[in-house]
Amino acid sequence: IVELDATLHASSKAGYKHYMLKEIYEQPLAIERTLAGRVSQGKVAIDAFGPQAATLFAKARHIQILACGTSYHAGFVAKYWLEAIAGISCHVEVASEFRYRTTVLPADTLLVTISQSGETADTLAALREVKSRAMGSLCICNVPTSTLVRESDLAFITHAGPEIGVASTKAFTTQLVALMLLVLATGRQQGNLSAEREQDIVTQLQGLPALVDQVLAMDPAIERIADEFADKHHTLFLGRGTQYPVAMEGALKLKEISYIHAEAYPAGELKHGPLALVDQDMPVVAVAPKNDLIDKLKSNLQEVRARAGVLYVFADQNADVREEPGIKVFSMPTVADEVAPILYTIPLQLLSYHVAITKGTDVDQPRNLAKSVTVE
Amino acid sequence: IVELDATLHASSKAGYKHYMLKEIYEQPLAIERTLAGRVSQGKVAIDAFGPQAATLFAKARHIQILACGTSYHAGFVAKYWLEAIAGISCHVEVASEFRYRTTVLPADTLLVTISQSGETADTLAALREVKSRAMGSLCICNVPTSTLVRESDLAFITHAGPEIGVASTKAFTTQLVALMLLVLATGRQQGNLSAEREQDIVTQLQGLPALVDQVLAMDPAIERIADEFADKHHTLFLGRGTQYPVAMEGALKLKEISYIHAEAYPAGELKHGPLALVDQDMPVVAVAPKNDLIDKLKSNLQEVRARAGVLYVFADQNADVREEPGIKVFSMPTVADEVAPILYTIPLQLLSYHVAITKGTDVDQPRNLAKSVTVE
Repeated sequence: IVELDATLHASSKAGYKHYMLKEIYEQPLAIERTLAGRVSQGKVAIDAFGPQAATLFAKARHIQILACGTSYHAGFVAKYWLEAIAGISCHVEVASEFRYRTTVLPADTLLVTISQSGETADTLAALREVKSRAMGSLCICNVPTSTLVRESDLAFITHAGPEIGVASTKAFTTQLVALMLLVLATGRQQGNLSAEREQDIVTQLQGLPALVDQVLAMDPAIERIADEFADKHHTLFLGRGTQYPVAMEGALKLKEISYIHAEAYPAGELKHGPLALVDQDMPVVAVAPKNDLIDKLKSNLQEVRARAGVLYVFADQNADVREEPGIKVFSMPTVADEVAPILYTIPLQLLSYHVAITKGTDVDQPRNLAKSVTVE
Repeated sequence: IVELDATLHASSKAGYKHYMLKEIYEQPLAIERTLAGRVSQGKVAIDAFGPQAATLFAKARHIQILACGTSYHAGFVAKYWLEAIAGISCHVEVASEFRYRTTVLPADTLLVTISQSGETADTLAALREVKSRAMGSLCICNVPTSTLVRESDLAFITHAGPEIGVASTKAFTTQLVALMLLVLATGRQQGNLSAEREQDIVTQLQGLPALVDQVLAMDPAIERIADEFADKHHTLFLGRGTQYPVAMEGALKLKEISYIHAEAYPAGELKHGPLALVDQDMPVVAVAPKNDLIDKLKSNLQEVRARAGVLYVFADQNADVREEPGIKVFSMPTVADEVAPILYTIPLQLLSYHVAITKGTDVDQPRNLAKSVTVE
């Protein structure tokens, strides 16, 4: 592990203008390294989670995920995955809320915490508070020597390598990869996942680095629209299903480094309030892979367009979302629905980066924020 | 019921400039009527939920709440209450997300839907989708003849009377009253709530109309700050614990009728991103009752102030939040923590109303929105 880390990130920018851009471009490699040694012959190596993992994943009847910020968004994607793919009920909550309220856990709950640094104060405190009531604890973490890893029963280390930019990028996508491995391992141990489906999803994960490379090639096209955001006060991000947390993460990136007030909504909630905000000054970004929800999402987008909202849609090349005045479409490579959240994160990272550059903000050290929130 | 409704709301504005203002001022009466006949001698009349309620509330091992928009915020408050007061695990989700994903419910789940009209398309569809997998279904609804009431096993009718303003006010606070009655009934049937505590909380509920009247008397003071928001592009709402959903509802009101981009955050998440947005152009509204979290919240407010954010704090009169340059404090009457979310909702309704009036928007019929979202 130490060796891999050393090659991935000497703390130089390696020719990139910012650490954040370097880290965005490192994602194909970071994903590959997070998979290396953890999958073989179409199966997840369950020992990668620790020696007791096989037993705990079989016995768990519920999973509670706790995290903060970007890691919370990764957990939110995993909630959708765990119920749909592994067949186990799952809830996810912001650690600072969970730790200070009186909570009731369903019987045989496996606790999963997620933190890049493994030192996030609220996540650590939540782990300590709830540990004795859970049947076991697992952390997904990027720093093997961290407190979170030390205090959890099981740990899965993402091999993203050191992340210097305050706005998390490769840590997030490798967390998602790690969480999908957890989903597969749990689904198998619960008896809810066939060997064929596991093999199929492992193959999709292994195909991600090449797909991420294709999306990174969209960089110049995304850069060209940055100035259309730079003079705006706000932006709405829309997604449905597993793409809702992706929209949340896209909005958070834009907030963090460009100081534009971006907010994400599950597209089905538009009519319950936020549609009142939409006019020509409110750009709307949507993530639209080709899946069961694409027609619903298209109808949501028509509602936005009917109120003069300008749309930027990252859509599957076969989703038949047409470019027209007021609708800019970016064609995404076709990707299996299961791993689509990982791929659709990439263009939103690039968008926030270029908007911040256009605005002239400090990309790697945004105002008011620290890399690891080690105090409350 | 029919008689009560007739007195509460002839569809005239009864001297108020807008239905919304009339409905805000009707809340003491609406709360009183929602309690009438449902509590007696310090106990909840469990039959108010329907004949099978006593059995279902005793047998349930988990509660899943589904709703949209404002009703979702009511459900979010109830999640905190159910775990802390009734000792039963609870999750809440936006109906449009829940219905389109593959979900796993814990064993013996009681489904609770919430809708003012009882015709909300996504909530109805979610009920139909999940009903066969739940051990029973209850709806909290304001219209006794609605489809939702007809299709649920149990129903509790809020007696808010017809709500004409598109932005929900009295429907929301009476939903919270109804949900607290559910919490008490469930807590008792689960064996987790003493008769003393039930009596205590019932007394608090009965004291609410008088407290709401006191808060309504703050109206002129709130009106005076409306122009400080009217020229702003956005606003941040902060709360912790049960006040987080109250902050969400406050933000939604401001969005809906004043078209200001307002967003709520649980205050503990500030450091994980949104703090980057804070500067002198971003007013921050906080709800600060006196409870275990008040010191944490005060420290969050200091962070905002240190970044030049202008604060408007609705704080318990004994919470020792001091007015100073950049911090405007509104003294709220002391209220028991259990029912505080209901009381702290009121000033946020008044704030959004006056900001909208100052901006000259159509308060009762905001652009792009309909009263009941009966289509997807």
